[in-house]
Amino acid sequence: MAYQGKKLINDPDEVVTEFIEGLVETYPGLQYLDGFPQIKVVLRADVSIDTYNKVAVISGGGSGHEPAQTGFVGEGMLTAAISGDVFTSPPATSILAAIRAVTGPKGCLLIVTNYTGDRLNFGLAAEQAKSEGYKVETVIVGDDCALPPPRGIAGRRGLAGTILVHKVAGAAAEAGLSLADVAAEAKHASEMVGTMGVALSVCTLPGQVTSDRLGPGLMELGLGIHGEPGAAVVDLQPVDIVVSHVLRQILSPETQYVPIRRGSRVVLMINGLGGTPMMELMIATRKAVPELQLEHGLAVERVYTGSFMTSLDMAGFSISIMRADEAILQRLDAPTKAPYWPVGVEGNRPPAKIPVPLPPSCSTRNDEILSQPHKLTEQGCVLEAAIEAAAKEIINLKDQLNEWDSKVGDGDCGTTMYRGAVAVLEDVKKRYPMNDAAETVNEIGTSIRRVMGGTSGILYDIFCKAAYASLKRSSIITAKQWSDALEASIAAVSKYGGADAGYRTMLDALIPASAVLKERLDAGDDPLTAFHLSSEAALIGAESTKHMQAQAGRSTYVAVDLLALVPDPGAMAVAAWYKAAFLAVKSKLQPSES
Amino acid sequence: MAYQGKKLINDPDEVVTEFIEGLVETYPGLQYLDGFPQIKVVLRADVSIDTYNKVAVISGGGSGHEPAQTGFVGEGMLTAAISGDVFTSPPATSILAAIRAVTGPKGCLLIVTNYTGDRLNFGLAAEQAKSEGYKVETVIVGDDCALPPPRGIAGRRGLAGTILVHKVAGAAAEAGLSLADVAAEAKHASEMVGTMGVALSVCTLPGQVTSDRLGPGLMELGLGIHGEPGAAVVDLQPVDIVVSHVLRQILSPETQYVPIRRGSRVVLMINGLGGTPMMELMIATRKAVPELQLEHGLAVERVYTGSFMTSLDMAGFSISIMRADEAILQRLDAPTKAPYWPVGVEGNRPPAKIPVPLPPSCSTRNDEILSQPHKLTEQGCVLEAAIEAAAKEIINLKDQLNEWDSKVGDGDCGTTMYRGAVAVLEDVKKRYPMNDAAETVNEIGTSIRRVMGGTSGILYDIFCKAAYASLKRSSIITAKQWSDALEASIAAVSKYGGADAGYRTMLDALIPASAVLKERLDAGDDPLTAFHLSSEAALIGAESTKHMQAQAGRSTYVAVDLLALVPDPGAMAVAAWYKAAFLAVKSKLQPSES
Repeated sequence: MAYQGKKLINDPDEVVTEFIEGLVETYPGLQYLDGFPQIKVVLRADVSIDTYNKVAVISGGGSGHEPAQTGFVGEGMLTAAISGDVFTSPPATSILAAIRAVTGPKGCLLIVTNYTGDRLNFGLAAEQAKSEGYKVETVIVGDDCALPPPRGIAGRRGLAGTILVHKVAGAAAEAGLSLADVAAEAKHASEMVGTMGVALSVCTLPGQVTSDRLGPGLMELGLGIHGEPGAAVVDLQPVDIVVSHVLRQILSPETQYVPIRRGSRVVLMINGLGGTPMMELMIATRKAVPELQLEHGLAVERVYTGSFMTSLDMAGFSISIMRADEAILQRLDAPTKAPYWPVGVEGNRPPAKIPVPLPPSCSTRNDEILSQPHKLTEQGCVLEAAIEAAAKEIINLKDQLNEWDSKVGDGDCGTTMYRGAVAVLEDVKKRYPMNDAAETVNEIGTSIRRVMGGTSGILYDIFCKAAYASLKRSSIITAKQWSDALEASIAAVSKYGGADAGYRTMLDALIPASAVLKERLDAGDDPLTAFHLSSEAALIGAESTKHMQAQAGRSTYVAVDLLALVPDPGAMAVAAWYKAAFLAVKSKLQPSES
Repeated sequence: MAYQGKKLINDPDEVVTEFIEGLVETYPGLQYLDGFPQIKVVLRADVSIDTYNKVAVISGGGSGHEPAQTGFVGEGMLTAAISGDVFTSPPATSILAAIRAVTGPKGCLLIVTNYTGDRLNFGLAAEQAKSEGYKVETVIVGDDCALPPPRGIAGRRGLAGTILVHKVAGAAAEAGLSLADVAAEAKHASEMVGTMGVALSVCTLPGQVTSDRLGPGLMELGLGIHGEPGAAVVDLQPVDIVVSHVLRQILSPETQYVPIRRGSRVVLMINGLGGTPMMELMIATRKAVPELQLEHGLAVERVYTGSFMTSLDMAGFSISIMRADEAILQRLDAPTKAPYWPVGVEGNRPPAKIPVPLPPSCSTRNDEILSQPHKLTEQGCVLEAAIEAAAKEIINLKDQLNEWDSKVGDGDCGTTMYRGAVAVLEDVKKRYPMNDAAETVNEIGTSIRRVMGGTSGILYDIFCKAAYASLKRSSIITAKQWSDALEASIAAVSKYGGADAGYRTMLDALIPASAVLKERLDAGDDPLTAFHLSSEAALIGAESTKHMQAQAGRSTYVAVDLLALVPDPGAMAVAAWYKAAFLAVKSKLQPSES
């Protein structure tokens, strides 16, 4: 099904000039020649032709391959780049303008991809520039390894390997070498590199209809970068198989395209073709590096993964392998200000992975700690009673919670909470270091998280973790510490959960409970009284959710008048376990009154 | 038409771990924790937890947004990043492992995108880490400006603006600030930035079928980065209109999402969503910068154009605008080793465009030079006669050349050459400085290029330019200089055209002609005799093309036995004009024998 390709552009005829204008807005180190639409030349803003005393390195070609070539203009790489229209060689006049703009007494090197149009136009410009007195050398790059050695004029296509040639030449020029030496290094580099591409899709030219050449389940091997058909269309394969095949083709001893033998040092470039997510490029890299090392016996010295020479929005990648001795590595590693040369690829390679760190020793729990102590303190007894009572109350409330939830949510609140409560009861005697309130609260969170999925499980765990951290600050735990812990827990749940009072959540029980507890303790009430009033506030708060509009979860889709009949089950659950805990504490501390 | 999305991957369940392995192969400055598949943490290889004395800055989230967040790990930005599965928040255990791995005595800042899963899992990890004694602060980023202010829990989504927050926080941490100060700067930055996206396509999850939600001709405004529907689906518009709309929405005085007013200083981020070519992003930048300046009255201090926070292979972009005072700019400009933070965006902004340079004065042609001199020298007369004779011969040969070409090519060789010959005849009296052989030859090339399209026109121009440069070297032009010029011309045509002897091209006439001319002159023959023998060699060479297999152009598709009946018309044309020139020269220099 062919259709008009969708592009975020204005006029298809102006994509290149508008691209250059945007590029220069982004990078203050770049300028362009004021000769649109014929002359489309990007050049270093820091090069003044009157004082420039290094070899200028110039490249260019049809557009649609961005960031190539304009994105590689910068100190240490290209001095200027000439853009043609999409997939069309720039005219010689434009190339000549670039030469004139940046070429000083040391001359210029033209790096030309091996396409007839580029060769002829750069050639004409070179000859014209020479006739004007410029020193000009030309290196033509043809790094394609997809096709058998051609007999005729065309030769091998220039592909992403060209970018590596740019880098070598640019660094050589920056080092102050003569034109002859820069050209010799570039030529040498061009003979060391081989490239082959694979594509999942064809590219769409601005304003054009997308070809349907490559249907579902198919891929193309040995493609070009101008939408021309590849060497073969095959069924889509896992990328590991594709990478292995491409590497074998590039390194084929039959074609001998690159002088790479077992033991050679190489650099690897995985180049996205425009529409390929970085994730897929990196997955190819992951396969290519060990494959080169183990299967082909090569030392992989550098890896460049990214989009360097694209084909508009084509999905796929090319792989380039360049033989790299110390001299080439030095050029590749040399600093450059070209915006799109990758950073951070050089340097020593430490082990790729390191062990997952253990928890710090202060919090390491061993089996000794994680067990019920032989003898409970009085506080331990009270805490145990409160926990058990709270959990049992939730178990009792299962059906009621489910019923409320079936009216305003997905009906499983009771079941979910029940699972957490059962886990707590299972662990309470086994694992909870009951005499240590902080650690016990922490373990409650762990029990709940183990069995309770979804938002509520994680929120209860956050609740417990925050309480733990708060309780942990004091060696003696009184009602004041419990009150502070409750406040800290509420703050954490609110912060990470995003809810607040009035959002029809568990906070509508917790917040009033905490407020009353703190207020009564501050007022000098005895702790049991404060706890009692606090538990009543929790219930009132929970019931008040009947009148609240939901702000999260499925309840947001339920009409307000329906909601008005039922309270939020999460808030009611809080009120219930909180009150049960209070009653248990009270019966322990005031057994006479129970 | 929904279909299984094509991906260059292996197992859809392992894309994230394989991505991380490839990332670490590419960047030696990155490592990962050895905890696959549950724990997927990328961290700085240069941070040793035992000696690290700065605040650790940690972020993370679901995968599929690469390079976010892993690609921003590096000195001066993130200390660690935690990846979840595609579009899935990482679990708290994995986040906790990252915290433990990089957090020293100064603590850590968690920068969390505002999604429920991220908030809860980072929140739980933060609370757990605190309980282990770590200092932890959390900043939640919600920069989405596409939707009206939400009432409930969800809040605004975290989008590409998060990357700018990372940079501010990372630079603040690198500067040695305390956790409270780093967190304060990050929070401030998060409040200064607004983002909105547009998409042309939905994204395809690994192993999933692509949704056909967005049909041809449609785009989506205000999308998220997880494939969720946007705020509105509208007809595709020119990108300038889209950019204007998005900027207005972000800066809307109704929502007041960002505290940006006329006169504010801002930075701009144009963020590709994964499948958008750089060309289109730059075209958006080109519109956004002047629009912000002129329509909104803002000072655009920095522009970041690229793919920072993507949505797999989605086509589209988001725009982020951040209010940036001097302090924020300093953080954004601070050096970082994070591989995907853009380089070269800071620094003074010179004029975007500079004039196209004029040709150097030595080669400037003015009208005085470019005209037939009043009085021709003897050499001028001979040259004029040769040029006219050569051109007239091509005119006479038009039909014959076409006939040959119709059998082996596209049948227009005669017509094309005819156009060039007519142009030469038109210009010969008007423009050619006939007493200056070099300049005259140069002008012949210009005449031909003016009217002759395609490869032959440019090759003839290259031929003439190379001859010009050669002739220009001598002040006195003898047969030797003409012979040298011919040799130089052939070298240039061969180099840039890619052909050689035996390729069935014009070179098959030129090469023998040049060889014989040089040989006879070296042997001491008089120039006319040498020219005569040379012209005979040209004809023999041209006729020998009958037996050659074509190596370029359409002739390559013609069967050998058909080719055997006709010579290459380009070579025959050379032989013809070359012989005509000889005859004219001869009749001028030896009129008695004519």
